[in-house]
Amino acid sequence: MSSHRIHNFNAGPAALPLPVLEEIQAGFLDFGGSGMSVTEVSHRSKWFDDVINDTVDRFRRLLQLDDRYHVLFLQGGASMQFCMVPMNVLPDGASADYVDTGTWSTKAIKEARTLGKTVNVAASSEDKNYSYIPRELALDPQAAYLHITSNNTIKGTQWHRYPDTAGVPLVADMSSDIMSRPLDPGPFGLIYAGAQKNIGPAGVCLVIIRDDMLGRVPETLPSMLKYTTFSAKNSMFNTPPCFAIYTVQLVLKWLEDTVGGLEAMATVNRKKAATLYDLMENDGFYRGTAAADSRSLMNVTFRLPDEDLEKRFVAEALENGLGGLKGHRSVGGCRASIYNAVSLAAVEALAQFMKEFARRNG
Amino acid sequence: MSSHRIHNFNAGPAALPLPVLEEIQAGFLDFGGSGMSVTEVSHRSKWFDDVINDTVDRFRRLLQLDDRYHVLFLQGGASMQFCMVPMNVLPDGASADYVDTGTWSTKAIKEARTLGKTVNVAASSEDKNYSYIPRELALDPQAAYLHITSNNTIKGTQWHRYPDTAGVPLVADMSSDIMSRPLDPGPFGLIYAGAQKNIGPAGVCLVIIRDDMLGRVPETLPSMLKYTTFSAKNSMFNTPPCFAIYTVQLVLKWLEDTVGGLEAMATVNRKKAATLYDLMENDGFYRGTAAADSRSLMNVTFRLPDEDLEKRFVAEALENGLGGLKGHRSVGGCRASIYNAVSLAAVEALAQFMKEFARRNG
Repeated sequence: MSSHRIHNFNAGPAALPLPVLEEIQAGFLDFGGSGMSVTEVSHRSKWFDDVINDTVDRFRRLLQLDDRYHVLFLQGGASMQFCMVPMNVLPDGASADYVDTGTWSTKAIKEARTLGKTVNVAASSEDKNYSYIPRELALDPQAAYLHITSNNTIKGTQWHRYPDTAGVPLVADMSSDIMSRPLDPGPFGLIYAGAQKNIGPAGVCLVIIRDDMLGRVPETLPSMLKYTTFSAKNSMFNTPPCFAIYTVQLVLKWLEDTVGGLEAMATVNRKKAATLYDLMENDGFYRGTAAADSRSLMNVTFRLPDEDLEKRFVAEALENGLGGLKGHRSVGGCRASIYNAVSLAAVEALAQFMKEFARRNG
Repeated sequence: MSSHRIHNFNAGPAALPLPVLEEIQAGFLDFGGSGMSVTEVSHRSKWFDDVINDTVDRFRRLLQLDDRYHVLFLQGGASMQFCMVPMNVLPDGASADYVDTGTWSTKAIKEARTLGKTVNVAASSEDKNYSYIPRELALDPQAAYLHITSNNTIKGTQWHRYPDTAGVPLVADMSSDIMSRPLDPGPFGLIYAGAQKNIGPAGVCLVIIRDDMLGRVPETLPSMLKYTTFSAKNSMFNTPPCFAIYTVQLVLKWLEDTVGGLEAMATVNRKKAATLYDLMENDGFYRGTAAADSRSLMNVTFRLPDEDLEKRFVAEALENGLGGLKGHRSVGGCRASIYNAVSLAAVEALAQFMKEFARRNG
């Protein structure tokens, strides 16, 4: 079956590896010899048990998680975690530190406060429109946790070195750069990530939680809002989002078996990002919006000399098979999201187009 | 592409219409000429806008919903609604009536009470292991709502006539029989349904809510836990479960355009259920577990003379291409779930097998 395909630079939902899509397509009417689609098999069947267990195992191997960590699959995206995290692991009477790097961390702070929880903003880059990652943090050594957003899809910023918290557990929203580079899980008490950028389709949210954080979960929460419900039942207290988890499984298989793991993935990702940032630095036509030391390897945000040119850039790029380059509606400009599944060849095609567009319009 | 397919009697996730699966498969690498998979397109794109708007329109037409009703797509399944319903529409100080018909309604009651809400159990069929739908209800005319589970997948019971509440809004978990028959939405203030039985795959939960119920939603709830967040943003406050919604769209298109709507669907469903219930009544080998006036048209639950025979029945059925016939692990026995997507031909094949199995073992 041959299909028209574009290079997809969407911020999320985003590109998935073509071999993953082809495997889903090929077996869509008969999953693993079951005689049913993967969308039709029971979550209480051996077929789905194999899917979810293999997915968990692959996360454990790729992220080198020891037995203290639990790998869970929830619904509602990272936005649901903005309230679930403080409900579960920020006890009344305690306070948590949050670093505000814009948009998503701002929302996470707002939702914690909506619950009546005490939040200390340990640092913010609001003074420069969130174009950088703060280095000076006013950390509370008694904080229940320090919350960060590892990568900001909208502002194009990313933490390149995680802060030293002297034992306070890190909690991170890693929706937009999870599995894009090796990770030392040690400092993290909880990691969450909506799947639809680096690890799968929309509809499932990864939560990795450590024993000590699970121990904080109040028994009084509704079942579906407490992490212990999911850890006790291998994420199957109720019907999980089976298709989304299955797709995540295939993405991890591709990452492990075809790409060769997180170190190999990071090498490709650094090369992709350098291709675009180098072009912008040497060019003068495109202007990156993030501070050089805070640039995201996942979301490359940039402006052109004026908004008319930006509109034409996005439109002409699409005509050339390069989609999803419009910046987020809240900030304008342009953005190339170059997650794991976006190939180096796709980025090189974009760079080529950018050079030609600059030459014609510079 | 030809595939091995079985007749699928799973309780959920469950059978989907073959033409729906084939359409998903055919366009999986290039959705609507976008050059992307439906799992890769942005939820902020015209492609996905068309999907979600058409899905809402089809629900409105099929269920004859007037402008007071809002059609929303949430995550977390019906289980998440067990807590969201009382959080949103059961004000502190008020109480709600619940009818306990087992399993799911029992859980709904438990979750409301976990929140500290006041629940009055207006009737229960626990005295006979939930094998019937109660007729005598002790209703409170001041109740905030009356909650029912329209169909119990595990006990095989179904409401065939909804109770008269004299103006108190009905709230119904319709996960397992939504769209299986025509509905007068008038008495309902809120309807919710996990998709994975009659309308789609796991991973999306339909919520239909009326203006007056939306008006009760407390502003103080976290964003992802209040219905107003979803109604204000056409279910796209954050990234929705795009693939699951797209599949629901195709199921509704099949229901509307191929089957011919809910009246036509109900005719087929009655015929399917009668095929199995008539066989059990005339046979003596199979024993239905639900009271005759409460039998579900969706989940036909039955026992064989002993458990060994039940095991052999399930195993031999699968060898004959008839899958998913084991009863829920909490009750044992056998169960044939015959949702919309299970064809009359599939049910006739099952009936044929049942007759032969009884003859050989009776």
